[in-house]
Amino acid sequence: MSDKPSPPWDKASLRTADTRKRENTQRRAGNANAREERPVAAREAGNKQELRYYGLNAVQAVFAKRPGAIRKVYLAESRIPRLQPLLAWCVQQRIGYRVVAEADLGKLAASSHHEGVVADVLRVEPLALSGWLDALPAGPALALWLDGVGNPHNFGAILRSAAHFGVAAILQPQESTLAVSGAAARVAEGGAEQVPLVRMGQRDDALAQLRAAGFVLAATVVRDGQDLFATRLPQRLVYVMGAEGEGMDDTLADDCDLRLSIPGTGAVESLNVAAATAVFLAQWRK
Amino acid sequence: MSDKPSPPWDKASLRTADTRKRENTQRRAGNANAREERPVAAREAGNKQELRYYGLNAVQAVFAKRPGAIRKVYLAESRIPRLQPLLAWCVQQRIGYRVVAEADLGKLAASSHHEGVVADVLRVEPLALSGWLDALPAGPALALWLDGVGNPHNFGAILRSAAHFGVAAILQPQESTLAVSGAAARVAEGGAEQVPLVRMGQRDDALAQLRAAGFVLAATVVRDGQDLFATRLPQRLVYVMGAEGEGMDDTLADDCDLRLSIPGTGAVESLNVAAATAVFLAQWRK
Repeated sequence: MSDKPSPPWDKASLRTADTRKRENTQRRAGNANAREERPVAAREAGNKQELRYYGLNAVQAVFAKRPGAIRKVYLAESRIPRLQPLLAWCVQQRIGYRVVAEADLGKLAASSHHEGVVADVLRVEPLALSGWLDALPAGPALALWLDGVGNPHNFGAILRSAAHFGVAAILQPQESTLAVSGAAARVAEGGAEQVPLVRMGQRDDALAQLRAAGFVLAATVVRDGQDLFATRLPQRLVYVMGAEGEGMDDTLADDCDLRLSIPGTGAVESLNVAAATAVFLAQWRK
Repeated sequence: MSDKPSPPWDKASLRTADTRKRENTQRRAGNANAREERPVAAREAGNKQELRYYGLNAVQAVFAKRPGAIRKVYLAESRIPRLQPLLAWCVQQRIGYRVVAEADLGKLAASSHHEGVVADVLRVEPLALSGWLDALPAGPALALWLDGVGNPHNFGAILRSAAHFGVAAILQPQESTLAVSGAAARVAEGGAEQVPLVRMGQRDDALAQLRAAGFVLAATVVRDGQDLFATRLPQRLVYVMGAEGEGMDDTLADDCDLRLSIPGTGAVESLNVAAATAVFLAQWRK
């Protein structure tokens, strides 16, 4: 499809300060066409409320879960049949969509892994810990505390595993910069829409709130923890996962109730954090 | 370190056809400096025998396991203390090493994840199935059959998990193009040196040889397999992992003795293949 004439979008993406000014003026003037002219490069435009999603499952999951968050859709011609319900909804809701060349999707996604669809989507704000706990039903529950995971591929794979194993929330420390990115959402294959993100407050308060709600905190450490497979796991459990590279922060591990390790040969220092997370989650779920 | 003067390597990498000819002439003439002048860009030069490794654990693992395979080392100044044993060995064996700027390491590795060290390393040829089986001790053994995994990050994470859980071999179909790359070796964090790769012949022969050696073959399927956690796993087991995206080939799954699935919520279609592999391996290892 790369031999098709350049879509109008190409021009929009190359707009100058002048044309941008004109667009803004049109928008302010309520010009009927202004919606079609708005900047497509949300990422470059620094629009903090929107996120550029890509990948079929990632976009379909947003459509299934919160269609109202979709602001703009770009797709390859070959995706029209598969995305018919989404496109029908876009028409009904007057949300802009464009059929563009594969190469343009690659530029829009800044990735070759767009799978024929890109969408600008409103971000979900993380929940507050107290609000999440208040709404949580009684009974078994599993949460993941991510204390420094930074790689979007790892975060995406963790979201996907968390969705598969029914994790009730991803808990983020107060100062964490972890946020769902387009890359993480793509790797999560829809999992990013399934697992709520919860922002914690000051560490001691968070620990106290979680314990008051019956949660046991388990630090996951590379070595010298209790054997995961020989430990009876509590019904309400928070696994605390350390950062890639550095692993678990010692003071945080000391604050936890358990230290768990996945026994192995010692041939490598540790498992990848996303692989380790999958093993920990699976062990609780059984 | 990017404000240091350009290292000699920079010139070498920008050499023209003329200088390349001169280098070759020097080498043929047995010029004492020729070793230092050989092309550094093995990848671009299409050297099929060598692989460009990067990442501290990946390079250290090669040095520990097969130091004779190291052909050239590039490192950041900050890595000199940590890599002292490797450098001493390079001096002793007359293997070239160069201290270069961080930015140059990024170019050499074609990745920002070089962790201060890059090395050109001889590839390991995969073993033949019969040879591997002949040398395999009696008793419990676990192998992984990778039927189409293509992403180097997934392959690297699988190698790392395989090393952690003591997998005896990665089995590759005859026609597979799967090979350790620099990216896979980096993600494997040393695991690429721990787990032998075995190239199988024609599928029916491979299945017959594995069964004759007491192995049970388990297809790993996204749904409708036996519950992994409720299945008593055989002592000699081959997990057959399908490709990302497509999953398991139906005819291959039909040829297997078991079909296993990791039960989940259904909120996502499946786990990432590297996450699923970790869960399968962990369950056997227990």
